[in-house]
This record gives sequence, structure tokens and C-alpha cells, in this order.
Amino acid sequence: MLEKLDLTKEMTKEEYQARMNILEAELGRLQRQCRNLGIPVMIAFEGYPAAGKGVQIGALIHALDPRGFEVHPVKRETEEERMHPFMWRFWTKMPAKGRIALYDTSWYNRVLSERFEKSVGKKDVAHAFDSILSFEQQITDDGVVLIKLFLAIDKKEQKKRFKKLLKNKETAWRVSASDKRCSKNFDELEKVYEEMLQKTDTDYAPWHIIESTDRRFATVKIYTIVINALAECIEKASAGKKEDQKKKQLIDDRALKESILSKVDLNLSYSKKEYKEKLKKLQSKIQLLHGELYRKRIPVVLGFEGWDAGGKGGAIKRLTEKMDPRGYTVIPTASPNDWEKAHHYLWRFWQAMPKAGHFSIFDRTWYGRVMVERIEGFCTTGEWQRAYKEINDMERDLYDAGAIVLKFWMQIDKDEQERRFTARQENPEKQWKITDEDWRNREKWEQYEEAVNEMLIRTSTPHAPWVVVEGNDKYYARIKVLETVVKAIEERLGQE
Amino acid sequence: MLEKLDLTKEMTKEEYQARMNILEAELGRLQRQCRNLGIPVMIAFEGYPAAGKGVQIGALIHALDPRGFEVHPVKRETEEERMHPFMWRFWTKMPAKGRIALYDTSWYNRVLSERFEKSVGKKDVAHAFDSILSFEQQITDDGVVLIKLFLAIDKKEQKKRFKKLLKNKETAWRVSASDKRCSKNFDELEKVYEEMLQKTDTDYAPWHIIESTDRRFATVKIYTIVINALAECIEKASAGKKEDQKKKQLIDDRALKESILSKVDLNLSYSKKEYKEKLKKLQSKIQLLHGELYRKRIPVVLGFEGWDAGGKGGAIKRLTEKMDPRGYTVIPTASPNDWEKAHHYLWRFWQAMPKAGHFSIFDRTWYGRVMVERIEGFCTTGEWQRAYKEINDMERDLYDAGAIVLKFWMQIDKDEQERRFTARQENPEKQWKITDEDWRNREKWEQYEEAVNEMLIRTSTPHAPWVVVEGNDKYYARIKVLETVVKAIEERLGQE
Repeated sequence: MLEKLDLTKEMTKEEYQARMNILEAELGRLQRQCRNLGIPVMIAFEGYPAAGKGVQIGALIHALDPRGFEVHPVKRETEEERMHPFMWRFWTKMPAKGRIALYDTSWYNRVLSERFEKSVGKKDVAHAFDSILSFEQQITDDGVVLIKLFLAIDKKEQKKRFKKLLKNKETAWRVSASDKRCSKNFDELEKVYEEMLQKTDTDYAPWHIIESTDRRFATVKIYTIVINALAECIEKASAGKKEDQKKKQLIDDRALKESILSKVDLNLSYSKKEYKEKLKKLQSKIQLLHGELYRKRIPVVLGFEGWDAGGKGGAIKRLTEKMDPRGYTVIPTASPNDWEKAHHYLWRFWQAMPKAGHFSIFDRTWYGRVMVERIEGFCTTGEWQRAYKEINDMERDLYDAGAIVLKFWMQIDKDEQERRFTARQENPEKQWKITDEDWRNREKWEQYEEAVNEMLIRTSTPHAPWVVVEGNDKYYARIKVLETVVKAIEERLGQE
Repeated sequence: MLEKLDLTKEMTKEEYQARMNILEAELGRLQRQCRNLGIPVMIAFEGYPAAGKGVQIGALIHALDPRGFEVHPVKRETEEERMHPFMWRFWTKMPAKGRIALYDTSWYNRVLSERFEKSVGKKDVAHAFDSILSFEQQITDDGVVLIKLFLAIDKKEQKKRFKKLLKNKETAWRVSASDKRCSKNFDELEKVYEEMLQKTDTDYAPWHIIESTDRRFATVKIYTIVINALAECIEKASAGKKEDQKKKQLIDDRALKESILSKVDLNLSYSKKEYKEKLKKLQSKIQLLHGELYRKRIPVVLGFEGWDAGGKGGAIKRLTEKMDPRGYTVIPTASPNDWEKAHHYLWRFWQAMPKAGHFSIFDRTWYGRVMVERIEGFCTTGEWQRAYKEINDMERDLYDAGAIVLKFWMQIDKDEQERRFTARQENPEKQWKITDEDWRNREKWEQYEEAVNEMLIRTSTPHAPWVVVEGNDKYYARIKVLETVVKAIEERLGQE
């Protein structure tokens, strides 16, 4: 969940002030409503050392009535706490109904800093994850609004911040020995964070990642998330639980969300000559690797998603052209038929998963759940919201069973799509490829963009990463797909 | 969940036939309704080798329309299956909407027989539990009715059955080498079963334990469970989901449920002389052990529950009489006050958990959730149903942190209670102990009995067992409590 972040996001002072005027008043109002309705709220702050947790907590409580909240700094366990089960101190620090508790780091310490510092054993880490999931399920079942924030900065920014603190005598003490170790082993720490985010990103207590390089941006994003979470819960509490009303957000948060697609450089291209040379080399390489995979019994799962006319078909064709057809299957995914609809939405994909040594290449995938089904209302809000974890679980199962799992998003811009649609319509041989539905989907471009961005963040994992393919130039896109697959296979074979 | 079972239950042929006439017709009818409503049903059969899974599946399908179900015998993985993730074969064998799938052993193989046979590693077992929980949550979220049956017999019965099979040439082949190993290591196998039952007894997919010594009893119990589960789901599907209507059972299953309390021998007693001698010895022993626990930093959690006037107070008094008062706290649990009500129901108990080396002794406990709150409707059906797992999770957290956890149920019969109530009322010094509420609770004796029996089964675990104390004779009861505590401490200290 961390790898696709854009940590360069900023906000001008003017925009910040304009937004905060509204947000602070709103948060104060919602706090009062929560108090009246007896809703308990827990806000956990986690994130990289020096990401600004303290500063952000300070900014958030600025708008709160001090009689209605408490901040719990979670440091090393006290003697007293060490003499109890590790969740004891959090159970005893739960807010009463109508109150807000903020945690400056939280029960995740056990699986983050303590784990990283190796002060807990492997078995205890596994137990801790069980206890955490059980705790969060229990309290949210009981009506607690639980908001989990993860503040992210990158290696460079962290270094810069530590340096600045260390330079000044009055602040140097704030950089602990543990902070220094974290900074030194940034990549290792990131793995610990990533695993934690994966394991605990549930539908009842999802993680919110806050890009924290710019303090103002982070503050506005945190306010917006907290406000929307409270407003949603207040609406539910006062209207009686209606399972599936579409979430109306009090504050529009689209501008604050990750926009991976907008950052893609669509000018990347190859000349025809470059393309042909590269293609030839890569295709013979993959032919060889395919045999190797077969001998080592390693299954490969490739998923292709992308805009209509994004070039999925062409890429798959070039990928498989020289492969032994007995060793791969291409699975085109249409809308589910009646028999498929009579099963769980993942069922038909499980059917098609490759056996060891084989490729399954999906032309459209299980991600339909969080794109078309979400947008067209083919499933309930709850259903697509919990699908992120369901899908992550499935891909982890595949990975645990030894599979290489890659997912490609074929990205083109709206103009390029129009050019391709028109070209298809004018070409009698390709007319079948374009339908009225394609034009209709096109009208929902912005909605899809939002859904795709969320999907890329929540389901890109080290064991099953998303690869965004710059697709305006077909040559470039096809080569990138081939190169990525080759690289992933070589890496895996290198580990064997 | 296995230790409190009564495996001697039987049913006469006459009763069996009378019941089955009704049950078979009912099941056939419900199968048709499920088909019409498009409800998919999965029934998993697990249990001890030779417990009769095959026979019971045969009995169950007898009432089913063969066009609407399939039986999946789950044996060793095929070559094909081994080449896929381990849940693959179950994902692909899911029933379509309106169909019933029966599994002769199931996805639990990985954490049962395969684990027992050590053909999977420890890490894979942990992964497998994750995958199983995720799978069951996903399919039940999607509307599958999942019924999990665990067929239990004891060591002796199993031996008898194997012997009978082995005696006859035509049946001897049915006893596999693996069965023989299981039989030889019955106790070890039981531990594996117990851990599995604990970890996967969830509110969305609870386990049903079937006492299978008597085939007829088991068949009737299985039919009853399946029928009640289908009827409940059909009602929900056709009435629209009403969160909290009290479950009406189609078939009354009380006679088939565990009745631990009815088996308690209330004639056990000690003479005054015996009592005094034993008491003196045990009290000085516990005094010594208490110091030892303190030095070794072992916390102790004791919970006392029981009928009103069951003798909780007296037992606690004798237990603590000679203990150093700085090392224990007795926590009397009344109905929650407003501040406690403003928190999760477990919160106030977490507050009172002992630190290392100390005793917390609870006079009434968190089990109020599944007794008085259940019966008086102070919480919703969903809330008390998921409380079993919540409580098991909490007690496991305590155990993982090194605590000794014991729970006592002080059992007396209804007549004895009346004698004690009357005696209290007539004794001016004890009048305060008896209230109108006590008399009112007494009227709900049968309801409490049912709730207590279910509680004892679902929450008695090896790391936090229930001890049922025969309480009609106060002397006997007090000595038993002291003896049990002493024994548990000695065992733990022996392990250190």
C-alpha cells in the first residue's frame, strides 16, 4: 500500500487557510454531535519516525473541545503495563461514549517498532496480529468509530528532518537511538510497515495513508478523513442503519486522494525499429524462461486491466506469441453469466488459476468488483469495500502457493481513447471491438479514474504489485509488459 | 470445546423413528425452499476417525432431492490439486445458489490430519488458519449458509470401532495406517482438534459438536441443526434482514443439547471434621504457593459464577482467608453503572486484570454477557452470540501473557436454592443478601440452565477451563475450589 504513493503533494498557504476555516468549524460541530449521540471515537496515529505525528495531533485537537478528548502518548511499556497482557493498556484507555481518544502511536507498536527492534519474538508477533484484529473487530462491532492514520514520508525527507533536528542542541534530543536505527534501515522498516498495513486493512477498520511531506497538505487530509468518518457514523446513528445507502461525503476529498494515473508519463515511446529489436529479444527470452518455470513448477498469474482500447489485447498477443501454447491459457473475462452469478464473484477466477508451471493470463480480472461493479451499482457499497481485503487475501494465497503474481494497468488518456475508438469504427475489421457500452463507460471517465486510483493504492503489494503501463504508444506499452514479466521471472528464478 | 462433552447420549429406536419421520419431510421441504430462494448451502463434516462421518452423510442425504446436492469426499490432494493453492479445490467446489454441497472432511484437513501427520510446516499451518477464516468470512458475507459439524467419540469407543472393523477381512482395509496412528496418539490428536475448534468458532460460522457414540442420537442432532440453520436463513431471506429478532427454532433442540449441569453429582459431601482438616492443609499450601507465584511473576485470574446462593462468597472467603491481602483483589461484579455502560462490556473487566504475581478474583464475571444479558435481552442476539469468541480471545490474551485462568461454576439444585433463600430471609443478618430479583431469576431457571450449558461447552478451553463445583454441600464445594486452585498452580510451577 506504500509503493504507489506520491509524496510530493503540497498545498499553498492560501488554500490551506481557506480550507481550514471550514474544516475546523465542521469538526467542532461534529464533536458535539458525537457527544450528544454517545458515539465513542478512537483515532490512531502511526507512521514513519519524523513523519510529524505529534504536529498533526496538535493540529487536529486545535478544533476540539478539550473537555471531550484525551491524547494517549504510547511509549515504551511501563513496569505496570509490562505486567499485563499487551492489549491491556489499550482496553483500559478506551474512550467512553461521546468522547474522543487520540493515540500517538498505538497498539500497533507491538508489530512495528517493537518488532523492528526485535524486542518481541516471532510467535508473539503472530499472536499480536490476532489480538489486534480481534480488538478492532470487537470495538467497531460495539459502535466505536475507529480511524487509523498512517503518516508517510520518504527516505530522503526523513533524513532531512533528522539532520535538521540534530543540528540544533535544543532539538537533538528528540532523535532517539531507535529513530537512528530506523533511518539507517529504512527499507527494512518499510517492509514491516507494508506487511502490517496489508494484514490489518479491513473493511471495518481501513487504513488511511497520509502523504506527510507537506505539513499543510497532511493536516487538511487528516481533518477531511476524520470529518467524513464522523459524519458518516452520525448519519447512520441518527437515521437508523440502512445497509446500502451510497456514502455521501460531507467534505469532498477527491483533490486529496492519490492520483497515480495523472502522474503517468504518456509521452514515452519507441520507434518501430527499436520496438522490433527489443520485441525479438524479449520474446525469445520469455520462451526460455517459460521452460525453466515449467521445470521448477512455478505458476504465473498475470492480470490485465485498463481503459477500453488501452491495448490489453495487443500486449497479451505479443507476450504469448512465442510461448508454448500448452503452457499458458488466456482467460477473457466478460460480465458473469448466470451460472457464474450463482457463485461468489471470485469463484470463476479460482477455477482458472494456473497449476504449477503454467501461466494464466487474465484479460480483465477480479478487479471488476471494485471498478465496474462499484460504479454501476452491481454490488453494494459494503461488498466492494471489503473486496480489497478479499482480493489481497486471494493473491496472498496464490503467492504463498509459490506463484508469481503481476497486475498490469494499461493507461491511455481520454484523447487517445477517442482516437482509437474512432479508428476502430472506421475499420470494418475492427468494428466489432467497439460497442455503445464503450462510449457510455467513457462518459464515466472521472468516476473510473477515482476507483482505479483507490484500487492501485489498496491492492498493490510487494507479492502482487500493480504495474502501470504508459500506453499511448503501443510499442512502448508492449515492451514494458514483456520486460516486466521477464524481470519478475528472472528475479524469482534467481531466488530458487 | 471438547472437554465437557457427554458422549454417552443415546436414543431409543422408537424415539428415533418418531423424530425422523418429521425431520426428513421437513428437510426435503427446506431444500426446495432454498432452491427457490437461491440460497447456497455448505455442510462440512469433521471429527475423529471412525466417528461415523460417512454414515451420517448417508443418513442426511437420504432426505434430499439428489438433483440438488453433491457430496465431495476430501481425500489426499490429487496431483492437480497439489499444484494449486490449498484452498483452490474448495473454491472451485462451491455450490451454486440454491444447491447443497456436503464435504466429507473439508478445508480443515490442512490444520487437522495433514498437520497431525506433519506433512505441512508450522508456518503453513498459520497461513492455513488465515486462509480458512478469510474463506469462511467471504462466503458467509456472500450469503452462503455454512454448517460445520464436528463428530466426537471418545478413545474407548474409537478403539472398539477399529477393532470391529479389523476383525473382519471385508472391512479391515477401511482402517488406514493414518487411522491407526490417530488412535495410538488420541490425546495428541485431541489437542490439535481443540485448538482448531477454538480458532475457528466464529459468530458467522460456529462449530456444532455432535456426540456420535450413538448413531441415532447423532443423526437426529445433525438433522435438527441443519433444519434450524436453513429455516433461519430462509426466514431472513424472505422477510428482509431484521437484525435482532429472537431466533425462533423450527425444531426444538433442547433435548439434544449438552446438559452438563444435569450430570453433576450433588450428593458429594464432607463431614465437618474432614472439612476442617482439609481446609487447614490447603490454606497453608496456598499461602506458600502465593509467594512462589509472586516471585515468578505469574498472574492468576479466577472467575466465580453460579446460581444465586450457590456459595460463591463462601468459597472466595475460604480461598483468600490466609492469603497475603496485598497480593489479591476480589472484584464484586454488579450490573454496570453508567460510566461502565458507556464502554465496551469487557472494558471494566480489563481494568481489573491482575498484574504479574497477583490474583484477581471475580465474584461474577464477563460471562454475564451470555447469561443475564442474553436472557433479559440487555444485548442483541448478535452481541451475545459473538461474545463466546470475544471472551475466548480475551482469556487467550491473558494466558499468552502468562496468566493462570480458571472459572468456577457453583452448581446447586433448585430445591437447595429454595432452602437457602428461605434461610436467608429468616436470618436478620443475611436478609440483605436476598432480593426480589433473586426470586424473579429463579423463575427463569430453565432458560438459565440452557444458557449455562452452552456457555460451559463453548468457553471451556485447555488454557482457561471451567470447573463445575458440586455445591449442595458447602464443605465439599469450598474444598474443591481450593484443591483445584492449588493443583493448577502446582502444575504451572512445575512447568517453569
